[in-house]
Amino acid sequence: MDEKLINGFSKLDKHQKIEWLQKYFLKDNDDSVFQEFWHPEKEKQKLIENFSENTISNFVLPYGIAPNFVIDGKTYAVPMVIEESSVVAAAASAAKYWADRGGFFTTILGVTKVGHVHFMWNGTYDQLQDFVPDIVQKLMEGVSSLEENMKKRGGGIQKIEFLDFSFCEKNLFQCRVHFLTCDSMGANFINTILEKFADIIENFFVDHSELPDEKKDVDIIMSILSNYTPECLVRAEVRTPIENLGQFANGMMAHVLAEKFCIAVKIAKHDVYRATTHNKGIYNGIDAVILATGNDFRAVEAAGHAFAARDGQYRGLSSCSLEGDMFHFWLDVPLAIGTVGGLTSLHPLAKKSLDILGNPGAEELMRIIASVGLAQNFSAVKSLVTTGIQKGHMKMHLMNILTSLHADDESKKAATLYFESHTVSYSAVREFLLNLKGIVV
Amino acid sequence: MDEKLINGFSKLDKHQKIEWLQKYFLKDNDDSVFQEFWHPEKEKQKLIENFSENTISNFVLPYGIAPNFVIDGKTYAVPMVIEESSVVAAAASAAKYWADRGGFFTTILGVTKVGHVHFMWNGTYDQLQDFVPDIVQKLMEGVSSLEENMKKRGGGIQKIEFLDFSFCEKNLFQCRVHFLTCDSMGANFINTILEKFADIIENFFVDHSELPDEKKDVDIIMSILSNYTPECLVRAEVRTPIENLGQFANGMMAHVLAEKFCIAVKIAKHDVYRATTHNKGIYNGIDAVILATGNDFRAVEAAGHAFAARDGQYRGLSSCSLEGDMFHFWLDVPLAIGTVGGLTSLHPLAKKSLDILGNPGAEELMRIIASVGLAQNFSAVKSLVTTGIQKGHMKMHLMNILTSLHADDESKKAATLYFESHTVSYSAVREFLLNLKGIVV
Repeated sequence: MDEKLINGFSKLDKHQKIEWLQKYFLKDNDDSVFQEFWHPEKEKQKLIENFSENTISNFVLPYGIAPNFVIDGKTYAVPMVIEESSVVAAAASAAKYWADRGGFFTTILGVTKVGHVHFMWNGTYDQLQDFVPDIVQKLMEGVSSLEENMKKRGGGIQKIEFLDFSFCEKNLFQCRVHFLTCDSMGANFINTILEKFADIIENFFVDHSELPDEKKDVDIIMSILSNYTPECLVRAEVRTPIENLGQFANGMMAHVLAEKFCIAVKIAKHDVYRATTHNKGIYNGIDAVILATGNDFRAVEAAGHAFAARDGQYRGLSSCSLEGDMFHFWLDVPLAIGTVGGLTSLHPLAKKSLDILGNPGAEELMRIIASVGLAQNFSAVKSLVTTGIQKGHMKMHLMNILTSLHADDESKKAATLYFESHTVSYSAVREFLLNLKGIVV
Repeated sequence: MDEKLINGFSKLDKHQKIEWLQKYFLKDNDDSVFQEFWHPEKEKQKLIENFSENTISNFVLPYGIAPNFVIDGKTYAVPMVIEESSVVAAAASAAKYWADRGGFFTTILGVTKVGHVHFMWNGTYDQLQDFVPDIVQKLMEGVSSLEENMKKRGGGIQKIEFLDFSFCEKNLFQCRVHFLTCDSMGANFINTILEKFADIIENFFVDHSELPDEKKDVDIIMSILSNYTPECLVRAEVRTPIENLGQFANGMMAHVLAEKFCIAVKIAKHDVYRATTHNKGIYNGIDAVILATGNDFRAVEAAGHAFAARDGQYRGLSSCSLEGDMFHFWLDVPLAIGTVGGLTSLHPLAKKSLDILGNPGAEELMRIIASVGLAQNFSAVKSLVTTGIQKGHMKMHLMNILTSLHADDESKKAATLYFESHTVSYSAVREFLLNLKGIVV
């Protein structure tokens, strides 16, 4: 056996895990970097470690605030967690810009989530139909106690359908269930119900003595919620007279900005290459709030990008129109999220994020997150059609290079000035610092 | 003005920012949670803060290790950053399982990235063609110094095309540029080149005195890289005789597992509802390594999901086939990532992650990440078609509920035993603890 393979790694304690890593995978003996990010209080460190498995350290991401978000008339300071430069600055800038123009307005277009039991049964879809009312009754009875609490909160099972999936595989059927899960993301609730449903469906035909033996068996393939939530959808929009847009970089007039902006959004509707990056920018904003509030960004990303391809072409998620003298810009985005359960109250900073936002319910958080996505997109497209993104971005990039070259504050100042009129590259910055040092010393 | 709005927030120092938040958005006066996550060394804290803007704290995510990844014959311990329970455990479990069966094999299918200059010009596509050779020459000359370093490393501009976009907007054209960026993700390099190209294209026709005035103007809409990278693609695969798959939970035989597994993967190819969750699971693994190595998960997610919809239907990214007596499972996924530049060497733990992985180049990291994605998918689908995911998941969920109810270690043990045969819900756990306490006290 390769000596780098190991049995029972999960059973080692944190120190032993690090020791093993040092021995087989790290040449240096300095393991302080793992420990220096531990939380000073043991209990809190344990809490964080227990979110996942095989943990040896905490990975830190900057936690920032984008103030001045006016959404449906209410002012928010929005916590954002992101490692990419310029994102929080762009969100804050768009928030302020739109706060001066009435703010963001939102509409909840739906809050339904779905899940499925996929199963095989040796009959036709027509034959199955005869049993559906009876199965549905048994399903509902079978989960009444599991559903009770969610029902009290106004949620629960909304609809049960049976679909023919024989186009995919002979004898394959799908039980599709529609849920309301109130302020929770609902994954555990939905999956628990579905696995119970699977048990019931598996046993349903056994009791039907009138059926031939080969029709008594059901083969469950799998039972699981879907992260595709086109009916758990929110719209965020901004609107202002074109003349109120103001004047932009290099003296660009409002109507020119408006027209270029609309064309840029239109390109993202037609070209998958542009659409992908357009939507990536939207999720820069969305994911930062998803992370800050202890939600699951993989779920939200998957739903949004699949939704972007719903008509057979992958398109930009936001839309822009010039209606007479009005500039109108909006985003429809599926957001299946929670403000109770999961990490939302367990992670100390996720909890604090919800405090900062005024402890919103899931729908209010959907409104906030969609607005941040739209704000992010507005800033990105505005930069692209005016100055280009590199000007601001390269400033941040320059700072990163200077930091990695251990430049002192004085050198940083000199470099900032110099590179206002010179192209930033790693070698150019290094050369500049060398020359500078040569003069200074 | 609403008192919750603010000018100059970014100019406040960290303490002032927190103070302002406390005053206007937080009812309690306990601001210790923001400070307790700061790095003890001021310089390192500053480094992390400077990755982004308006920062007041560090958001921590558990940093764990999935050992036993054998990829192309080499053994890795893979660092993963994720807040969701069961993901690292699932990756580690699949890694071990496949290490015993020869491991993962990978193929780099391409490493090309693209970017675009979108512009308007008052002529037809045919007319533009006459100028293309001349424009291309000017473009290449104009960026030769910018491209120099990348060329030395074996990268640079591969191809320049001009595309007709009049189907989207009258007079709209696209300059599409193909790049190799070696071990860097390349966003800054690509965007810098493209903005220079935009300058050159904007001025190109001015010098052509033979052209009528209206054809001398070019209107640049925008210049930016694309995150859609179908040609920066890697395949990871596993393969073993079906009989070697072993026996599974509840005594499921290898060939039954193989067939059910294949049907589950097939469902994800046909049903967008299942495909979204199927791919979400793949990105649970991928994003965890992307984060751990200082790469950008929004870029990688957007590329992958758009790629999943490339033929007009959004589909699962992985594929499974039973070829004679062989089980074959593979994943093609676009991964435009870097192992130099960006945060990779600036973030202390991202740097350490690359150390743990043996400081791979971008291609090797693509191979590792795709393998983790495939491993994650294997574990998820295997769980779904055998025990269901709730059994393992609810165990973690139970621990989270117990923690949030401040259960002591003894109560946790008792609860774990009890809920092996009872359904987990928040109220059921609370009730159990109440009863237990009643007996114990």
